[in-house]
This record gives sequence, C-alpha cells and structure tokens, in this order.
Amino acid sequence: MSDSSKSSNRPEFDLIDWIAQQLTSSHGLQLGIGDDAAILSQERGWEWVTAVDCLVGGTHFLNDTPLELVGRKSLAVNLSDVAAMGAVPVSALIGLVIPKSMKRSDVERLCMGIIELAKTWNVSIAGGDTNSCDGPLMISVTVFGRVETGTAVLRSGAQVGDALFVTGRLGGSLKSGRHLSFSPRISEARELLANSRPTAMLDLSDGLAGDLLHVSRRSGVGFVIEAERVPIHDDVDHSLPFEKRLAHALTDGEDFELLFTVNSEAAEKLERSGELLGTPVTRVGSCVPGSQIQIQLGGELSPLSPGGWVHHLD
Amino acid sequence: MSDSSKSSNRPEFDLIDWIAQQLTSSHGLQLGIGDDAAILSQERGWEWVTAVDCLVGGTHFLNDTPLELVGRKSLAVNLSDVAAMGAVPVSALIGLVIPKSMKRSDVERLCMGIIELAKTWNVSIAGGDTNSCDGPLMISVTVFGRVETGTAVLRSGAQVGDALFVTGRLGGSLKSGRHLSFSPRISEARELLANSRPTAMLDLSDGLAGDLLHVSRRSGVGFVIEAERVPIHDDVDHSLPFEKRLAHALTDGEDFELLFTVNSEAAEKLERSGELLGTPVTRVGSCVPGSQIQIQLGGELSPLSPGGWVHHLD
Repeated sequence: MSDSSKSSNRPEFDLIDWIAQQLTSSHGLQLGIGDDAAILSQERGWEWVTAVDCLVGGTHFLNDTPLELVGRKSLAVNLSDVAAMGAVPVSALIGLVIPKSMKRSDVERLCMGIIELAKTWNVSIAGGDTNSCDGPLMISVTVFGRVETGTAVLRSGAQVGDALFVTGRLGGSLKSGRHLSFSPRISEARELLANSRPTAMLDLSDGLAGDLLHVSRRSGVGFVIEAERVPIHDDVDHSLPFEKRLAHALTDGEDFELLFTVNSEAAEKLERSGELLGTPVTRVGSCVPGSQIQIQLGGELSPLSPGGWVHHLD
Repeated sequence: MSDSSKSSNRPEFDLIDWIAQQLTSSHGLQLGIGDDAAILSQERGWEWVTAVDCLVGGTHFLNDTPLELVGRKSLAVNLSDVAAMGAVPVSALIGLVIPKSMKRSDVERLCMGIIELAKTWNVSIAGGDTNSCDGPLMISVTVFGRVETGTAVLRSGAQVGDALFVTGRLGGSLKSGRHLSFSPRISEARELLANSRPTAMLDLSDGLAGDLLHVSRRSGVGFVIEAERVPIHDDVDHSLPFEKRLAHALTDGEDFELLFTVNSEAAEKLERSGELLGTPVTRVGSCVPGSQIQIQLGGELSPLSPGGWVHHLD
C-alpha cells in the first residue's frame, strides 16, 4: 500500500501516485504516499474516525454508468459515513481492482471522479493499492475523519421524547441517478453538532424504514413515523398514489441523507428554521418507549418493517 | 461500513459482526462495529499508521488455495506493512466482495483465517463492508498500527555508509506456498527499533532487486549488494546453479521479509548476533554514494535492475 511498487506489473498504471499528483493537499497526513504505510497527523483535542466501503460493478453501479460518477460515488458514500458521525473528512486510502480490459483513459475518468470530490472537501489521498483482474471493477475506499474528542454522534444515543428528523427528501434515488451525484451532508452535520447536539445520527443508505431499525436497536427505543410528514423526493413518480410514493421514500434506499434525533428544545428551533445551510430538514416522527417502529397514517398506527411498510388499508 | 446493514441483502451473511464475535479484543478502539464509522482510541505519545491491500482471486491466490490461507494472507500482508514502519498492529477494517456462488461454510473458512491471525497479534476488527458479486473473491484489508510519535521507520532515511540487512531467507515463496503462511516480522521490527534504530526499512513484496529501488530513490543513495551474502531460501531449487538460485532470491518476490539499513555500529552488533528473536538477519550489502544499485559477484560489479540481475558473466 501507499506503495507504487504494488502496481509495478503495469508500471504505466501508477495510479495512486497519479491521483495524489492531481491533489495538492496532504491535509491531515504526517506522511502520505510512497512508504509502506501512511502516518496520520495527531491533533490534540480531536480523534480519528474511519470507515470502509466497497463498490462493485454490476451491483452498486451499472456497467454503462459514466466512470467519473462511479469514482465520485465511491468516495461520496464514505464521506457520508463520516458526516453521520459528525466528523470532518480528512483523508482516504483507495483500493482499485481494475478489469484487465479497461482502457487507461477510462481509469483516469474513474479517478477524476474521486479527485474532484476529494478537492471539494479538501480530502487528501494517503495511499492505496491497485490491481487488475478478470472480473468487475471494484473500488474500496477507506476514509478518515476527525471529530472533537468525545463528540462523535453515535446511533445509540436516542432518548424517549426526542424528535426524529431527516435532511433533504427521500425516494427515487437509484432510478433518477441521484445516488451517483448526491452531496454528502458533511456541513449540515457539523452545523447540527455545533447548534443542535443530535443525540443519534446515521446516513440513510438502505432507506428510512430499514435504517431506523439500527437506531432503535442500538438506542433501545421505539419510534413513531408520521406518514404525512415524510418528505418525498421529486424523483418519485408524481402520478403514483400517496401511499405508493410514501413506500418509495421509506424503502428505496441510497438517499444518503442524515437521519437524526434531537431533544425537544433543539427540535423546536430546527422546525422553525426548516433548513440547515440551505438543506431542508423535516421532523418525521418521535422517539417513544419500547422497541417498535410504527407509522401513523390517517390517525392509525401500523408496524413499519425494514422491508417497508405493512400496508394496513388494503 | 461498520454497518451490518450493508449486508442486509443476505442477512445470514452478517459477516463483519460474525468475525468480530469470534474476537474478544476491542484493542485500540474507542468504538468498534455497529455504527457508521469506528473511532480509534487516542493514546498520548503514539501516532497512527495505516495501509490498505487488496487481494484478488486468480491474481494473489489460486482459486483452489485453501480459504483459511487466503484469509490469513489478506491480513498478513497488511501486518507486514505495519511492521515495516516499526509499528505495532492494532486494528483492521475488512472489505469483502464474495462470489455469489460461494457457500457460507467457505466464507467462514476464509474468515477463520483472518480471525486466527488477528488473535495472534491481538488485532481487533473495527468494522467492514460485505458485498456479493459475479466475479472473483476480493478482500480489501485496511490496517491500523501505532508507533511512538516520530519514530516510524521510513524508506527515506538510508545514509551513505549504512549497512543493508534482510531478515530471513529469500526466494521460492510463491512456488512453495510460503507467501500464504509467512509470519509478519512485527516483533523483529520492534526489536530493531528498540536496539538498532534502523535508518530505512520496508517489507519485501516484489523482491529485493525491485524493492531496494524504492529505498534508493527515496533516500537518494545507491547500494552495492554482495551476491555471496544473499541468504537464499531452501524453497529455491537446490539443483540450480548458484546464479540462477541467486536470481530467484532477488526477484521472486512475496518474501515479506524486512529489508533495512543501519549505521555501522548497529551493523556490527547485528552481524555478531546474526539473529533477531530467533529470525536470521544477514548483512547483504552497503549504502554508497550515487543512485545506482549494483551487485558484486566474484569481484565484479554489475547493475541490478528491478526485473533482476543483469547477468555479466555470459
């Protein structure tokens, strides 16, 4: 790793070096590319958070997806994980497994997608590893973020009486291609951390219905979702009846919006402003005793399962 | 990542959780599996080093390689990178892309290989990501190690007059299968750091002839290798003439031994003892002015290229 020698079988593909040369930042790094490992800078009062995500061709993107967008997404999903901790992204390690048939120009387009997003967020590339294979394109990104010691927002802190919020609007992400071009909610999360002290937070990757289960389990609380409040994205087909549109918002996944809980005082302020740095925030429910997740529609409560919504009106 | 939800399409394959349950250690972690990201513990006076390596079926291991050994190797190559910095391995993130045809029992065998080696070195699993694909098995391991602040051994510190050493014996690793079962030289590196203060160090993955070039370039020095001193592994065919055996030792690769430089005082002590914690150490050459890497055989000097040895006697 961080070791250009690892790509020495295809010396023209010294990709990790090449990516690093496109970036001027060595932000957060004591030592970057070129040694056996990178050294992360220490800064008193901050601690490191880290996450990895693998993207695979044919699963997380189609084989005809523009490669810039594939590269962009591979970093963006990781930045979204960092945001969900309330942390600032700092650096990343890139692991690439490239189909032998892929042209150099295509590989560069893939990398440019990573580079452009890294520049946007001042994320440095600490190193990586490149390989070729007879198989689909695979990209593994490990991201490092920094958060003030002891302030990371976990999934386990939701309290009965807290209000449940989401940023943005939900549903239709895969169909519209939004999953390739979304903006990780890093600034919104930092703003929340500074002014609303969220008690629990995660990023929505599987859909609200599924992801809320993680908060419920780890916090040991239940939730009631108010159906009419769920912000349905314009990407969801307008001609569908409300309940179908709602189901899309709850279960489509890959929204990469923040789902978070705050106490009632912070909730009031957030509801009044309705936005965080220009991104809408919407109260969609509340945290209740127990372990059930329910949805309230037309005055009636129904269980909400990870697979989606158990329709109670049919 | 660290997010069991990522494997929710195959809930029975909650692998990262499962791996973590086999380990009791949460060494070096403020927060482990189960949230959007892991939090690394801070310890005053130490800094973090990190590296990533991807292993791909058909490239780094054959499709009939025992899966325990594949799993073991995926972690071992990363531990070797950490060792080459003089650091202590602490934790790892595991990214798995599993062929859809692979049986659960085979996946568990793969994971047991990772787990057993992690236990040996008290390495905790901080999180990961699992996916399935129509393609070869891919394992991406990100490793975290700790080293006393400012003491990491880089590739860039070799000085003219230093002696060049290797641990163990070289050559024949791929043919014999040693590349699957080698012991990362973590303890030896720590011992060196404590008592010999190496000026430069790396782990041999591409072979001495190729990897030494990295030290040469980054340190801005040349090297002379003394051919008769190169410790040739028993895995290299004994029936071959010396020069062929030497070529194997210099270029086969995947030795995962340490290559390091020390000053003359430390060199004398190391040569006298001839071992580090039971592992042989051998002086194979010295650091000279310039930028060339040469090999001395029978009183004659020839250039040594990364591809190997330019034979001067033919």
